[in-house]
Amino acid sequence: MSKTGLTVDMNPAQKLVSVERDKDMRTVAVISLNRSPTNSLNRKVLHDLITIMDDLEQDYSYKGAILTSSVQAVFCYGLDVAEMYQKSFDKFRDFWKALQDAWVRLYTSRLVTIAAINGTAVAGGCLLALSCDYRIMVKGPYSIGLPDTVIGLTNSSWVFEMFARVLGNRQAELSLQLGLEYTIKEAVEVGIVDREAHPKKLMDTCKEEMTRWLKIPDFSRVRTKRMIREPVALKLTGNPEGDTQNMYSYISQEVVQETLGKVLKKISNPSK
Amino acid sequence: MSKTGLTVDMNPAQKLVSVERDKDMRTVAVISLNRSPTNSLNRKVLHDLITIMDDLEQDYSYKGAILTSSVQAVFCYGLDVAEMYQKSFDKFRDFWKALQDAWVRLYTSRLVTIAAINGTAVAGGCLLALSCDYRIMVKGPYSIGLPDTVIGLTNSSWVFEMFARVLGNRQAELSLQLGLEYTIKEAVEVGIVDREAHPKKLMDTCKEEMTRWLKIPDFSRVRTKRMIREPVALKLTGNPEGDTQNMYSYISQEVVQETLGKVLKKISNPSK
Amino acid sequence: MSKTGLTVDMNPAQKLVSVERDKDMRTVAVISLNRSPTNSLNRKVLHDLITIMDDLEQDYSYKGAILTSSVQAVFCYGLDVAEMYQKSFDKFRDFWKALQDAWVRLYTSRLVTIAAINGTAVAGGCLLALSCDYRIMVKGPYSIGLPDTVIGLTNSSWVFEMFARVLGNRQAELSLQLGLEYTIKEAVEVGIVDREAHPKKLMDTCKEEMTRWLKIPDFSRVRTKRMIREPVALKLTGNPEGDTQNMYSYISQEVVQETLGKVLKKISNPSK
Repeated sequence: MSKTGLTVDMNPAQKLVSVERDKDMRTVAVISLNRSPTNSLNRKVLHDLITIMDDLEQDYSYKGAILTSSVQAVFCYGLDVAEMYQKSFDKFRDFWKALQDAWVRLYTSRLVTIAAINGTAVAGGCLLALSCDYRIMVKGPYSIGLPDTVIGLTNSSWVFEMFARVLGNRQAELSLQLGLEYTIKEAVEVGIVDREAHPKKLMDTCKEEMTRWLKIPDFSRVRTKRMIREPVALKLTGNPEGDTQNMYSYISQEVVQETLGKVLKKISNPSK
Repeated sequence: MSKTGLTVDMNPAQKLVSVERDKDMRTVAVISLNRSPTNSLNRKVLHDLITIMDDLEQDYSYKGAILTSSVQAVFCYGLDVAEMYQKSFDKFRDFWKALQDAWVRLYTSRLVTIAAINGTAVAGGCLLALSCDYRIMVKGPYSIGLPDTVIGLTNSSWVFEMFARVLGNRQAELSLQLGLEYTIKEAVEVGIVDREAHPKKLMDTCKEEMTRWLKIPDFSRVRTKRMIREPVALKLTGNPEGDTQNMYSYISQEVVQETLGKVLKKISNPSK
Repeated sequence: MSKTGLTVDMNPAQKLVSVERDKDMRTVAVISLNRSPTNSLNRKVLHDLITIMDDLEQDYSYKGAILTSSVQAVFCYGLDVAEMYQKSFDKFRDFWKALQDAWVRLYTSRLVTIAAINGTAVAGGCLLALSCDYRIMVKGPYSIGLPDTVIGLTNSSWVFEMFARVLGNRQAELSLQLGLEYTIKEAVEVGIVDREAHPKKLMDTCKEEMTRWLKIPDFSRVRTKRMIREPVALKLTGNPEGDTQNMYSYISQEVVQETLGKVLKKISNPSK
């Protein structure tokens, strides 16, 4: 079915990241994060996502992609902290490059990309959602945002640039400095989320929205998207190694490593 | 009357673009687009507009200009598609340069510029309105926006830059990718239009607003305007030839030419 | 008390700018402008502010600063016009450099900075408030804004950049071109002011807000703040001398000097 040999997963939920052709909209791929319990983004997840995006990008039978999660109430809680704890520069670089590459692919994809946010989407999880063209989130007791500063982490300038282009510079600054997490109601108000949907109607709402986007001719839409987004991507792609070094110099500080250690301990012993 | 010999048109409506000194506000010029039925912007219209702007810029008896249209219910429907259909690079360049030059003159004019939007203002028509300092639009069943992608066209980066500075990056991105057209109510909400006016009070409202602007000393206002707008204009003026080549390489694609051909056919046979 | 020998003022109100350690929040400094009647910013005031900021920056017993005024109903009316009237380039440069230096220190300070705006904050007074992380203003018949064009002055591009990042490009452009002053209600709506407070609760509200900011680890918050703000500061710090020359070439115009002369006359004879 796929011109470029994109493998349609037989047991999608068994892969960290799976992809399926939507049953109704045959030009739309549904990409799903399946790493219980929090879809935390390690190198493997990011590499799988990159491979999927590369395959879809080349396969012109696809015009759109919906990014979602198969984990109940969880879109994605962000980067796997273990990838940044007591790591050599080379190990960290492999991981960080995977994050950079996944972001550039999502953010500048020729496909219409819609995030079907089925639960909490924070830090790197929010980053993935922000990289899409459109964000629809389920109603419910979930949050979305970039609360990195709260646990002692910080964001790269390209994350701020993308974020500020979604909710404006002032709100983005407050949000990053204070590490704000938004309820779904707040998220719609400030514009992080474009629409909300009832849990049972999330995918239908996404497809309805996708239909609107697919009415626009591909050649003019893609040109327009890239004209707008490539200058933002360039904040990273102009010097990816510099970004990696900056981030490593930050996280390798003793105070940050200590904090990450505590976070890891808490994750492995959530009752404490 | 004019120090620099600006000709005041005797039969303004017979020219494609006319200019008159306002009867009440003697420092204000009223520029009118008169190309029925849609005020579509061809090379001649743009050259006339450039000449008028150049004359007004030099004539210090003028401090403001109101840009409007004499065509009922139509501000301007945008570029004349014929100028981009089956054209050599040289022909296209002449046209595109006229658009670029008209835009720079309007956008960075020392005059206070107010768009009196008397009807639909889409694509290049919206571009002209956006180039002014202030936009007032009549209430009515008209639309405003940059729906270029819908018919297979795309906007230059300088148009996006200007647009994003009016309604914010996120709304501008959605707007350009999806080719949105806004009703007057929506346009005021997102900020494309600053005020709405009853059809019979459009010019009075513009003059009332003009009065507010003309209270500010010219020397401080012009300096401030240019400090703000010249960095945006530089997105174009830094490499106008590159912009022309980019746009030509886009429109000369077979798929775009085919689309433009269909648009032209539809315009000449609107009943079909 | 202070590790770096920061002098805590014994009679703070007798200094043009004073600093005290807050009685409740021992990591918070309260900086106060005390130059009656309008806290106009001359070279001396700016130098005092620079010295205080430099001392606080080095003294790690401080984590936050609240910037306010001891003058009833007045936060700050802006630059002392006398510093720009009939001055040689060298004299002007000393003054302008002090403004530039004070701004960079405030805008990129490692401290959490909150403006406790106890009254009117216009022109340079608004600039100081905008340089903080957060702005809280008393309810009352006061205004805030950058009305410089109204009296024939203009703002540097770095002021516009900072301003546009607070209230968006469009509102910032309207605001600077028209020299708008906002009531407290309007200021909250457009986002110049983050919160309003009853006059008797201004400092309490600031401390409550400060508490929220101080919960974020310093190392991640400061990194984030500087990642966001240093590119804005660079609009000035990349070429401060060019900024000074630009501004001098503007203010030394005869028409501007005349205007400043009239302003000075009016200030010294307010009854006329």
